[in-house]
Amino acid sequence: MRDFLPVEKAKRERVLGVIRDTYRGHGYQEIETPALEDLGRLTSGQGGDNEKLAYRVMKRGEELERALGSSDTDALADLGLRFDLTVPLTRYYATNFSKLPRVFKAIQTGPVWRAERPQKGRYRQFVQCDIDIIGDDSELAEIDLLVSSLDALKAVGITDATIRVNHRVLLAELLDGLGVPEAGRGKAMIIIDKLDKIFAEGVVAELSEVFGTQVGSAFAGWVSTLQAGSVPDSLASLFAAVSVRHPGKLVFDPTLVRGMGYYTGTIFEISHPASGSSIGGGGRYDGMVGRWTGNDVPAVGISLGFERVVDLVAIEPSAGGVVLVLEDGSAEVVANALRVQADLIALGHAVRLEQRPKKLNLLLESMVEQGFTQWASVDAETAAPALKALA
Amino acid sequence: MRDFLPVEKAKRERVLGVIRDTYRGHGYQEIETPALEDLGRLTSGQGGDNEKLAYRVMKRGEELERALGSSDTDALADLGLRFDLTVPLTRYYATNFSKLPRVFKAIQTGPVWRAERPQKGRYRQFVQCDIDIIGDDSELAEIDLLVSSLDALKAVGITDATIRVNHRVLLAELLDGLGVPEAGRGKAMIIIDKLDKIFAEGVVAELSEVFGTQVGSAFAGWVSTLQAGSVPDSLASLFAAVSVRHPGKLVFDPTLVRGMGYYTGTIFEISHPASGSSIGGGGRYDGMVGRWTGNDVPAVGISLGFERVVDLVAIEPSAGGVVLVLEDGSAEVVANALRVQADLIALGHAVRLEQRPKKLNLLLESMVEQGFTQWASVDAETAAPALKALA
Repeated sequence: MRDFLPVEKAKRERVLGVIRDTYRGHGYQEIETPALEDLGRLTSGQGGDNEKLAYRVMKRGEELERALGSSDTDALADLGLRFDLTVPLTRYYATNFSKLPRVFKAIQTGPVWRAERPQKGRYRQFVQCDIDIIGDDSELAEIDLLVSSLDALKAVGITDATIRVNHRVLLAELLDGLGVPEAGRGKAMIIIDKLDKIFAEGVVAELSEVFGTQVGSAFAGWVSTLQAGSVPDSLASLFAAVSVRHPGKLVFDPTLVRGMGYYTGTIFEISHPASGSSIGGGGRYDGMVGRWTGNDVPAVGISLGFERVVDLVAIEPSAGGVVLVLEDGSAEVVANALRVQADLIALGHAVRLEQRPKKLNLLLESMVEQGFTQWASVDAETAAPALKALA
Repeated sequence: MRDFLPVEKAKRERVLGVIRDTYRGHGYQEIETPALEDLGRLTSGQGGDNEKLAYRVMKRGEELERALGSSDTDALADLGLRFDLTVPLTRYYATNFSKLPRVFKAIQTGPVWRAERPQKGRYRQFVQCDIDIIGDDSELAEIDLLVSSLDALKAVGITDATIRVNHRVLLAELLDGLGVPEAGRGKAMIIIDKLDKIFAEGVVAELSEVFGTQVGSAFAGWVSTLQAGSVPDSLASLFAAVSVRHPGKLVFDPTLVRGMGYYTGTIFEISHPASGSSIGGGGRYDGMVGRWTGNDVPAVGISLGFERVVDLVAIEPSAGGVVLVLEDGSAEVVANALRVQADLIALGHAVRLEQRPKKLNLLLESMVEQGFTQWASVDAETAAPALKALA
């Protein structure tokens, strides 16, 4: 978990603001759920492996007294910190759907927590930026999400991202064709998902071990025939629509699996040449919301990994700010400085008051480091000081 | 803990944005600390009664295995959710001070968590908006904080707030005068702090019980002589300076105590006629940062209770938004709708795509509830549709 210094925090807020503005521009609506959810809900199987990484919050008061001494972890805890924004969203929708529009287009940005072992590029608290469309089973939902995401990335200056696309039904057909029994699909997908890491050779070996050498060599044959650029009929209209606004940004990847078990249709993963891992992903998860509402509700979402996106964005030159140095601490100078500050703020400046220190240069140098770009001094009479450049 | 529906969330983000913009306008810098802190740090005595309300997060892995079965709560937990933004700030400053300006003016806005019994107006997760100045022992720091806070409230439309001000040294002098022994000051302040709730009679009774009837009747005599409006010499320059920008907004209240033990100088509490309790408060806490850095560091801060501020703000008319209804789901209409949407977004509109449903009126009515104000339909040829008012 990290502290953010002022310059880094300002960059993060600028990037997050642009993403949120872009999504709002596409008619999505921001919502917010609490950081803590019932532990039972968080660990009910929707969250896959992430459920194991949930921080557990201890019971309190009498309930804790009764549980103390127990060696059962889950008897001691009743709440957990959310590990993603999708599980809370489905709970939110089930709680609030009567007050939401029939097609609900949600923006969620906020921190999530995972008790991972610390390693480079992995944080225990990190920000996700999700958009989801609940209640639309048509392809327009996928088109909307993908165009909006590409617009958001473009708005923060990331123009060379591509989105790999596949479909769970295509994956199921592939596995059938390879001779994987229906009950083995989940297992086979987990193996194929490792293609990036263990390459075709490794996948062939693992498939052979679990499903027999016939499946392994069928996969080897299939992989060797893959050609870039061919889009299957079932995804052609999605690709055509997105290309109206973002030509060439979608790439069909028949080997794309995505880890989570809940996906039922299209799946996406956002790649960037400068990032070793994906900078976002998502897919259609039609069965998941219905688990809480009791009726089928179609849903599709895409999540940007904010930490990775921020790393790809160059720090913009700061909007600047003015340091107003008070010549002394007398009542007259303070009063005048407050007036001058208010005037400059009204003109759109960020204006910081400082007492004149013994070494003015040290102060001004330190202000440059903090992103301030101009300064002026004020005494009791200064009316509209000329701003001098810092540097 | 609460879910926020889109309209309420939009209002919260507007209000929070205005407060943050105002503070940035005064040259404060935003920072961020993690939601989780070491439990030992959170419960080291700085947080007063709030420490008892900290949510405790269970240890994980082998450390948890070793602790399971223990009946000692704190052996099972190693992290806690922050219950305010002040304790994390002092830890942040101690960690990062070498990278911060000598006078550090910090903005922190974010959720805090307290395991309170649910009651009206109290939430277990709520947002605080703090500004703090660390490293300035002059009165300019207090002036800066109070002017900035009054500007922030004014910017969100709250112009009838007043800030009650007192000073811990004045309180100590008062208690000396009443005959309270130095060792009894903390206890006496806790009693006087209840003046709002148990009135002068109750305070007199409690002081008499603890310190003898002489102290009780001395207090009764003092309270009866209090006059509104008289400002002691030691606070006169502070009042004069703030009145340059916000005349009449500071009120000297010699009975103001503030609960936290760590205050060492001026203390503030923000009152509003429409709010039963304070909507913010703060003070100078010169000793607290030094506990972690090992040397004395002056500090002063003020916190807005965001939930109460939001309740006082009328919902502004929404900035509006456009619903673009696709005449059908054909590839040509989708492609054209995406073009029209991009054009309207470029003009500054928020534009939501919708398939034409069987009952268009029901859709449009539901969009009005969500704050959308215009609509248009698009077919394959529409170039720049005339926007029609929703209502």
